[in-house]
Amino acid sequence: MKKLKVYDDTGFGTRVSDQGARLINPNGTFNVTKKGVSIWERISFYHTLITMPWWQFHLMVVGTFIVINTIFAFLYMLAGPKFMYGSQGTTWWDYYWEAFFFSAQTITTVGYGRVSPFGIWTNILASIESLAGLMGFALITGMLYGRFARPVTKLLFSENMLLAPFNGGTGLMLRVANPKLDLLIDMECTLMLSWVERTEIDTEQVSNPTSSKPQIREIRRYYELPLERKYINFLALSWTIVHPIIPESPLFGVTEAKFLNSDAEFIAKFKGYDETFNQNVSTQYSYKASQVTWGARFKPMYYRSETGSHTVLDLEKISLSEPAILPSPAAIPIMPDVLHATADAGINS
Amino acid sequence: MKKLKVYDDTGFGTRVSDQGARLINPNGTFNVTKKGVSIWERISFYHTLITMPWWQFHLMVVGTFIVINTIFAFLYMLAGPKFMYGSQGTTWWDYYWEAFFFSAQTITTVGYGRVSPFGIWTNILASIESLAGLMGFALITGMLYGRFARPVTKLLFSENMLLAPFNGGTGLMLRVANPKLDLLIDMECTLMLSWVERTEIDTEQVSNPTSSKPQIREIRRYYELPLERKYINFLALSWTIVHPIIPESPLFGVTEAKFLNSDAEFIAKFKGYDETFNQNVSTQYSYKASQVTWGARFKPMYYRSETGSHTVLDLEKISLSEPAILPSPAAIPIMPDVLHATADAGINS
Amino acid sequence: MKKLKVYDDTGFGTRVSDQGARLINPNGTFNVTKKGVSIWERISFYHTLITMPWWQFHLMVVGTFIVINTIFAFLYMLAGPKFMYGSQGTTWWDYYWEAFFFSAQTITTVGYGRVSPFGIWTNILASIESLAGLMGFALITGMLYGRFARPVTKLLFSENMLLAPFNGGTGLMLRVANPKLDLLIDMECTLMLSWVERTEIDTEQVSNPTSSKPQIREIRRYYELPLERKYINFLALSWTIVHPIIPESPLFGVTEAKFLNSDAEFIAKFKGYDETFNQNVSTQYSYKASQVTWGARFKPMYYRSETGSHTVLDLEKISLSEPAILPSPAAIPIMPDVLHATADAGINS
Amino acid sequence: MKKLKVYDDTGFGTRVSDQGARLINPNGTFNVTKKGVSIWERISFYHTLITMPWWQFHLMVVGTFIVINTIFAFLYMLAGPKFMYGSQGTTWWDYYWEAFFFSAQTITTVGYGRVSPFGIWTNILASIESLAGLMGFALITGMLYGRFARPVTKLLFSENMLLAPFNGGTGLMLRVANPKLDLLIDMECTLMLSWVERTEIDTEQVSNPTSSKPQIREIRRYYELPLERKYINFLALSWTIVHPIIPESPLFGVTEAKFLNSDAEFIAKFKGYDETFNQNVSTQYSYKASQVTWGARFKPMYYRSETGSHTVLDLEKISLSEPAILPSPAAIPIMPDVLHATADAGINS
Repeated sequence: MKKLKVYDDTGFGTRVSDQGARLINPNGTFNVTKKGVSIWERISFYHTLITMPWWQFHLMVVGTFIVINTIFAFLYMLAGPKFMYGSQGTTWWDYYWEAFFFSAQTITTVGYGRVSPFGIWTNILASIESLAGLMGFALITGMLYGRFARPVTKLLFSENMLLAPFNGGTGLMLRVANPKLDLLIDMECTLMLSWVERTEIDTEQVSNPTSSKPQIREIRRYYELPLERKYINFLALSWTIVHPIIPESPLFGVTEAKFLNSDAEFIAKFKGYDETFNQNVSTQYSYKASQVTWGARFKPMYYRSETGSHTVLDLEKISLSEPAILPSPAAIPIMPDVLHATADAGINS
Repeated sequence: MKKLKVYDDTGFGTRVSDQGARLINPNGTFNVTKKGVSIWERISFYHTLITMPWWQFHLMVVGTFIVINTIFAFLYMLAGPKFMYGSQGTTWWDYYWEAFFFSAQTITTVGYGRVSPFGIWTNILASIESLAGLMGFALITGMLYGRFARPVTKLLFSENMLLAPFNGGTGLMLRVANPKLDLLIDMECTLMLSWVERTEIDTEQVSNPTSSKPQIREIRRYYELPLERKYINFLALSWTIVHPIIPESPLFGVTEAKFLNSDAEFIAKFKGYDETFNQNVSTQYSYKASQVTWGARFKPMYYRSETGSHTVLDLEKISLSEPAILPSPAAIPIMPDVLHATADAGINS
Repeated sequence: MKKLKVYDDTGFGTRVSDQGARLINPNGTFNVTKKGVSIWERISFYHTLITMPWWQFHLMVVGTFIVINTIFAFLYMLAGPKFMYGSQGTTWWDYYWEAFFFSAQTITTVGYGRVSPFGIWTNILASIESLAGLMGFALITGMLYGRFARPVTKLLFSENMLLAPFNGGTGLMLRVANPKLDLLIDMECTLMLSWVERTEIDTEQVSNPTSSKPQIREIRRYYELPLERKYINFLALSWTIVHPIIPESPLFGVTEAKFLNSDAEFIAKFKGYDETFNQNVSTQYSYKASQVTWGARFKPMYYRSETGSHTVLDLEKISLSEPAILPSPAAIPIMPDVLHATADAGINS
Repeated sequence: MKKLKVYDDTGFGTRVSDQGARLINPNGTFNVTKKGVSIWERISFYHTLITMPWWQFHLMVVGTFIVINTIFAFLYMLAGPKFMYGSQGTTWWDYYWEAFFFSAQTITTVGYGRVSPFGIWTNILASIESLAGLMGFALITGMLYGRFARPVTKLLFSENMLLAPFNGGTGLMLRVANPKLDLLIDMECTLMLSWVERTEIDTEQVSNPTSSKPQIREIRRYYELPLERKYINFLALSWTIVHPIIPESPLFGVTEAKFLNSDAEFIAKFKGYDETFNQNVSTQYSYKASQVTWGARFKPMYYRSETGSHTVLDLEKISLSEPAILPSPAAIPIMPDVLHATADAGINS
């Protein structure tokens, strides 16, 4: 019997002492900070503008608008209020506000014309400002489109993973659903386990023969867990992803106490195709050991509508579960032949 | 001989009593409604604006335009008509309309200037409105582009599926064509059957030994039906998709009466590449049991043009068929070796 | 020994009498016209605007601009010239041109304001026009972006295919290169042969035993031709695609006369990835039997630059060839083991 | 034991005398120039505008703005200064500048209206200019969006490749990291070796039997080098790509002197998926023989943050290495079974 595929590294490293508390943050980003390159090399201006919250985006636009108008108002005042043809007022502040709003009318290209530029310098300033305004709003147009057109795959995940009875044995389960109206098809899931394994090291003992206590070496290991079903054609309702606890599973026979002590993290990676946006989409989510409930099963989250014409998916029930008694840890799930065939990549007898 | 691949779930669930009338709507969307999350989490603003009909989109733009101008007209009146420099009139309504159209000139950044803002409050209002106008039209620019640039794969499907004579046996057929001028290449089809299977349950009988009538359990089963040809290089003309009714097919030997009673639904999923848009495209379509014609064959829908220089595809004939006598239900289609090889994923001897 | 894979249909149909002169036009489009659906269903507005030549696109924009201004000029005249505040003139035409250019200033949102709308009707017209202008130019913005941002894979093909000496036997060759500066990687080629095969039909003879001349049935057959190399990592220089004329090839032992009489067409389909646009790209090209040169070989089209620092690709030499003597038709190319392995999908011993 | 896969061509050609100094430039482009087609066929306007540096892009916009305004100023002067209604001045230059800034106000559609067009010719010019302005800025809008929205995969590569001790043998290593905040997933690496091999040619000796010195033929060969790990799920930290120097490797037993004389170039090609942009991305990098350090090993470039909550990736350390003693050239790395399985495509025993 072949052993389960072990990854020494999935891109997160194996040295336990060099790693932070978790690999994937709850929002799907990597729990990594980067240093050593300047902020200009590190950040993507586009990325920042695309992913900042809406209120921040609007605040930034309005803030920039005010700052630029203030600067140009001063420049127009410097060129001289009399070169703002038609501006009226008695005090410096009167003229300043005329300049400020003239600037606003210029940068938005409204250009009412009650106040208009006169003389070379004011005209040059106004030309530069209107050109800059057009370029700036061109940029904002692109950003707004980019923000809207980006398919954000916000899958809904069950709060916990469950260790549930499964085909006479035990299965580790999580549940996902698509809260959006987008049509997601060809969804594929990869479930990885990352935990710390402890092995006794003999070499240490040899170099230090008087020590009677063997040394322990900690190493972070990665496993791809075989799934009952890796792929579905349509993510129309909910999808319960099941890792059957067969003897080949690294979780087989592991006690809850040992499990909680392993710094385990389950990473679920999803790839699929968004038919609304005609784009490939992907997302990931992670569960820490403390988020695994021992002995529970998911309750259904969809039902037939009252008229009987369609199915209703109740997204509030994504995490709804009931306690369930697990079979003996040695019980092995009965896997249909077809599942054994699917799981061949990882497991083989 | 291996059995045909059975899917317990393709994303639509298996509990018969919890499901609506059909899985896929005639327009390709899922027959599912979602509840339990707020409308803001559920809907994608972009999705809605991108997929609404054109008249609705234009109505929305014009409606928003009128509403916003009405609001700003009131705000300008509140700031005082005299601060709309150049506005003329005698009655309140005269000034209101001046304000309304001044607002329209501001939000579109036309800014003729016959009427122009004067004083701080009116100027601030006008600045906000022109900025909002630019942002709003930036958004509309993006939406219009998104609406146009989205490759909508509108394949034309034959109204019915046909059970037709095929290579000495019977084949289940549907026909598709591309009505658009886009070049579709590398088209792949997956045909799934979903129906309700009834099995007698012995366990019930055991717990209730006096009952002489065995209990019936209904379960929804999903099959991927092997096709004569899953893939074509170019969707230039029509494509007749054929599922040969070989002994491994779940439809082999099924009578029309039993079939109609099975709540069967055929889901045809298509994936391909649109060379005009340089994008992957996909679509799905479904047929209910009542849409299957027993004993008919498609008539050709293309012919050589009169000049002989090119081929003409007559899309009106997509559903055109003629009656045909089916062979005995036990007759098996003669499959060329190559087809048996292609079908290996699903069927094996 | 397995036979070469035969396709009964690649999306172009098999009935010889129903087909036009060629399958793929020299510009890569399908030689098919479509009828039976209204033009609105058939054409894609976006597709048309994206693929029309530049002069036509600009003409359309300017034409629409003139037409819409003419219409609005009449509407403004209808509302009354006196409601175009500030318009000057003596004759009807004077006022008409004022109206026409006022319209132009409104639709472009320049709005100088020498002439400005006055009164409800003119103001409503002007509001509608400026809104329509913004929407129209939003559309044009999208179209211009779409036209520029679309990766047009314009591969350069050799004018003819060559039957050339190849590894002691014969190979059918074509040559491609990328004339653009885009980086094309992971290029894959599929070469198909479509020709008419003639078989004697015995059944006809049986039903008509007095006829001594056997009937001939014509059928169009499609073959995927195995290639020496289907895939290259980088399309940096030229790529010569070679189909070795091994005994399994349908072209093995075929005489030039028989070949020219077969209505043969070779379709070369290319797929790859454009690193400049970060998009998958694809294109196809076809050669008719008359475009195959018997006994010639391509001359190199790249050389080391004078400074020795880089390689020069001379695209003018894409079709450059020299006559070459072909070995006996029975000579078989010596294929390295690795090639036999690659060709396994199609040929097997 | 099967031999390692040899590519005769990866798209770069095999004739040594016809090639330039390196295949891939340090910035990832091909070291090839193209001639023989006009510049219009060769360059992509979009490509150029998208990839030019920002300062150049802005200079181009400002330059075009000035040139077009200068041209239109002359045209307005030609039509006559009196047809610029409201323009003021005494000298020709006074009127010229009025015309110049009127042009600027027209092309940006600010249109203050202090100066406005009067008479047919000036009005026609102004209409054309405002239309051209809208089209031009539509184009710039698209370009700005294109520039920002393009996922530029700027992977950080170690300056040198290292020949380092690896599992009891030797491995050829390079290290990459993602300096950007984009999430890169499903990264795949292909490492190719291109070098010149020299073989004695007997045929020459035969035709010239008096020559006692055998002739040398140089040919450029391409190898795909098997990797310890070709694929990682997440590029969260650094990724050290290792080619183990097993006996099947073309580098096995090669001395440093012979290696430096081989004109070797290693090409590393990366493909992956950018989750921020929802797009496939790819890039390549190359190392010449002189960039390979014999006997060194990479030092770690990530560590646990002080708070212990996350991992810190220090990008400055990407090339940081320390000297290491290589085992005897005949030592073979101990490969886990799983690696042998992964490497099956290339190597087999």
